[in-house]
Amino acid sequence: MVNIIHRLGIKAPLEKVYEALATVEGISGWWTKDTTGISEVGKSIVVKFYSLQGNEIGSMIMEVKNLEPEKEVRWQFTSGPEEWVGTDVVFKLHREEEYTIVMFNHLNWAEEVEFKAHCSMKWAIFMLSLKQLVETGKGSPSPDDIKIDNWN
Amino acid sequence: MVNIIHRLGIKAPLEKVYEALATVEGISGWWTKDTTGISEVGKSIVVKFYSLQGNEIGSMIMEVKNLEPEKEVRWQFTSGPEEWVGTDVVFKLHREEEYTIVMFNHLNWAEEVEFKAHCSMKWAIFMLSLKQLVETGKGSPSPDDIKIDNWN
Repeated sequence: MVNIIHRLGIKAPLEKVYEALATVEGISGWWTKDTTGISEVGKSIVVKFYSLQGNEIGSMIMEVKNLEPEKEVRWQFTSGPEEWVGTDVVFKLHREEEYTIVMFNHLNWAEEVEFKAHCSMKWAIFMLSLKQLVETGKGSPSPDDIKIDNWN
Repeated sequence: MVNIIHRLGIKAPLEKVYEALATVEGISGWWTKDTTGISEVGKSIVVKFYSLQGNEIGSMIMEVKNLEPEKEVRWQFTSGPEEWVGTDVVFKLHREEEYTIVMFNHLNWAEEVEFKAHCSMKWAIFMLSLKQLVETGKGSPSPDDIKIDNWN
């Protein structure tokens, strides 16, 4: 099993960062505008992605596994690209100086495939969007996300 | 051993991307302005990083291990943060559609430490800077790089 792990610092209180990760409205502000479902433990959230031309280029369903205010949000993917199904995304939060530190983890990829390397770059782009959303009120969720290669 | 692996697509010919990775001038245009040394196999390159206030915040020395035009650049770190010493950075290039694809690898970290997660985000930032440099002629090398947390 291999993982993607990024560290991000956001100049905002824990509760603001937690809110952006733990609510459907928050997620739609930094990951993809088309986020629906219910962010409660045991319920599912659906995220859909589109090209700039408006074509759907992918979608995932994730079950919410943990919501611990100001500490942790955990999802498990139940539908989406086959490499994603069964993987977990975990956001762990703590404070350092004037920052809320986000430890981002996309855990349990079966192997080190090129698609994982693409997702590693894209998650970094979306972490920047999360920082932007919480610090300025405006993120860059899909389809307005920075495109990094021929896959998106 | 654990790795950082990112995938990037640059709308430019192989030789332009290779040049930005295989020459001291190229590296100084996307990673850090303070890049010196000789980019030849067996020789070393020195990179230094500064805060916006002008204080040195880190430096590394890397030995050039491979320079294969339009295919691969490989460095091994011989000095710098202790977690980096002995690790390799490898850039592998290939073409897909109108893109030169860069497979970025920072290989052989001893363990999954928080500093690796920081470097994973920073490498993504510098890959965006590389893309910007090759596509537009102007990157964002340190100290003008995007800051992502309380460590830089």
